[in-house]
Amino acid sequence: MSVSLPTDSVGLVTPSHLHIDTPLLLECGRTLPQFSLIYETYGKLNTDKSNAVLICHALSGDHHAAGYHSTEDRKPGWWDSAIGPGKAIDTERFFVVCPNNLGGCKGSTGPNTINPATGKQYGPDFPFVTVADWVNSQAILADALGIEKWAAVVGGSLGGMQALHWAIALPERVNHALIIAAAPKLSAQNIAFNEVARTAIKSDPEFHEGRYTEFNTIPRHGLGLARMLGHITYLSDEAMGEKFGRELRSGKIQYGYDVEFQIESYLRYQSSSFVERFDANSYLLMTKALDYFDPAKEFDDDLRQAVSPITAKSLIISFTSDWRFSPVRSEEIVNALLSAGKSVTYAEIEATQGHDAFLLPIPRYMEIFASYMQRVAKEVAI
Amino acid sequence: MSVSLPTDSVGLVTPSHLHIDTPLLLECGRTLPQFSLIYETYGKLNTDKSNAVLICHALSGDHHAAGYHSTEDRKPGWWDSAIGPGKAIDTERFFVVCPNNLGGCKGSTGPNTINPATGKQYGPDFPFVTVADWVNSQAILADALGIEKWAAVVGGSLGGMQALHWAIALPERVNHALIIAAAPKLSAQNIAFNEVARTAIKSDPEFHEGRYTEFNTIPRHGLGLARMLGHITYLSDEAMGEKFGRELRSGKIQYGYDVEFQIESYLRYQSSSFVERFDANSYLLMTKALDYFDPAKEFDDDLRQAVSPITAKSLIISFTSDWRFSPVRSEEIVNALLSAGKSVTYAEIEATQGHDAFLLPIPRYMEIFASYMQRVAKEVAI
Repeated sequence: MSVSLPTDSVGLVTPSHLHIDTPLLLECGRTLPQFSLIYETYGKLNTDKSNAVLICHALSGDHHAAGYHSTEDRKPGWWDSAIGPGKAIDTERFFVVCPNNLGGCKGSTGPNTINPATGKQYGPDFPFVTVADWVNSQAILADALGIEKWAAVVGGSLGGMQALHWAIALPERVNHALIIAAAPKLSAQNIAFNEVARTAIKSDPEFHEGRYTEFNTIPRHGLGLARMLGHITYLSDEAMGEKFGRELRSGKIQYGYDVEFQIESYLRYQSSSFVERFDANSYLLMTKALDYFDPAKEFDDDLRQAVSPITAKSLIISFTSDWRFSPVRSEEIVNALLSAGKSVTYAEIEATQGHDAFLLPIPRYMEIFASYMQRVAKEVAI
Repeated sequence: MSVSLPTDSVGLVTPSHLHIDTPLLLECGRTLPQFSLIYETYGKLNTDKSNAVLICHALSGDHHAAGYHSTEDRKPGWWDSAIGPGKAIDTERFFVVCPNNLGGCKGSTGPNTINPATGKQYGPDFPFVTVADWVNSQAILADALGIEKWAAVVGGSLGGMQALHWAIALPERVNHALIIAAAPKLSAQNIAFNEVARTAIKSDPEFHEGRYTEFNTIPRHGLGLARMLGHITYLSDEAMGEKFGRELRSGKIQYGYDVEFQIESYLRYQSSSFVERFDANSYLLMTKALDYFDPAKEFDDDLRQAVSPITAKSLIISFTSDWRFSPVRSEEIVNALLSAGKSVTYAEIEATQGHDAFLLPIPRYMEIFASYMQRVAKEVAI
């Protein structure tokens, strides 16, 4: 049975692969002798290659940002609300590129890739990757696609950090940076949550020091716990209250440890479905990349100095109920950009959904996003 | 070497025990055939027994609220900042009683107690206990001490919920209720954090369905994770930032999973020290008691109706940076009390320390607390 796809969707998409045999020196000092990136593209690259938009994904995201892999798919890509014909990132105008990051588990080189030096999976031996490494590898992808300068680099959360780093590190290659629901660095509390997640994974006896695949197992409980905890920080107290309240699944208190409240049921479902689709070693690497991101560090914590190389114009967006990366954190970026004399637009969106709001089609958010992208299109004469 | 104790301390204290052979029917429907409460007292009960103050402890608290068990103790009881000669709860005027709650692990009947029916520890077979059960057992302790009416029932966090329940359930026995850093019920987010903590404990292979002592082990990793997570919710983002920032323990990034940031070191220490002093089955029970507390539930979520039996005057205190039980949650109690025509005093204390602020000697907090307790003393002509 074939199902018709929504008309505002990019439709059926097929991932592409880029294989690079030139060694990539990573920020941690180690080198990947070769690497592959899996990526998707939507829309068409124009003749002067000026309409390309790079999408950077967040912690558990991947290259499948929009459209469907098959008509049987129950869900489109993770940012289908923002990418498609007539959407904020209009695929009738832009050529959109979204790679899976190095260290991930969805097809780019990562812990599950065979290490050419050993003939076995890298597993826990995969080197630490950072936002800077991702930006470097994305620049190699841009080279391969013939894209000298992105019309825009766009990302939410950890993706926003990549957009910020692109603008800082390769200013001549970024026209616009859209930095959504991000922060210039993690707070101690953010690191603390990551540390609990990592401890959960690493203390699971099925983790086997990261060599779980050799034991034909996965650290299901630990990774599941990490995801449960993540979900709490992605949603606001208010959103959880609206969605689940204190509803009891069976209507009355059971005095037991099975699921009683709907929120427990939701968390357990999120946990078990995530474990099927994400790799624990990748999760560990992603949380460390988050912890390490801190562009102001080498400038004595002066973010204004860190952003001084930027030539791109920026749109910064935050969400009122986001307590993972609250509006105050976005304002740190805005203030640094302003005091460095950069062109920056800032919108704080009224939203109850917490950090996850950046993935949702909230009208005011999408209006501002779309309007900004129309300006981007005009500037590059698309 | 004998160390002199601070002069504003209640000094050396010795716990007392109450053993009750009358069966106690619990809210869950099960009965404890007999039970013991361990408790401490500070100050002297006056002749008309009108100067007694009950202290109710929070999740991981116990009966040792003030003073020292030995001159070798490195730390006094958990609320020594508020209880002592000349302190907010002035032991020169008040007779202070603090029991360890049923289901606890510090000497009152709980999972580590021998079940008379089996001759073995209750372990996971210990019945679910609720705030109402604690209040009932504390009332039996009051009877045993000849205290008909408490001058005040005082508690922070889960302890505040007990103070609220005392005022609702046994109004004739409470002159004043001091409900600090509490909430009238948990939010979905609060329950979610508890569920993650429980899942961590229960999925630890050393948990053995709660029978870990029979296996001469403890679910160290799971309980430690629960505590790490708890600590994040006890502190504010700001407090963590002030205390730890993004300080690196060794000064530079290691690209490894050992402790890198100071906050990680703190959490690991909190985790390992807690595991030595707290029982996993008790922890599970306490989190469930928190989840279940909801006095408005049987009144169609109308808290005003739930508090209508109260005759006590109340002091409600919240702390600005407490995101576990934010000021808004305290205001729900205040508003219900006001609209039910009760006498209520409310103070929102400016504090950066998060939920833990209720344990700290914050000057403005202690002034308001002390001043209210002076009024309590005056009313009962102490």
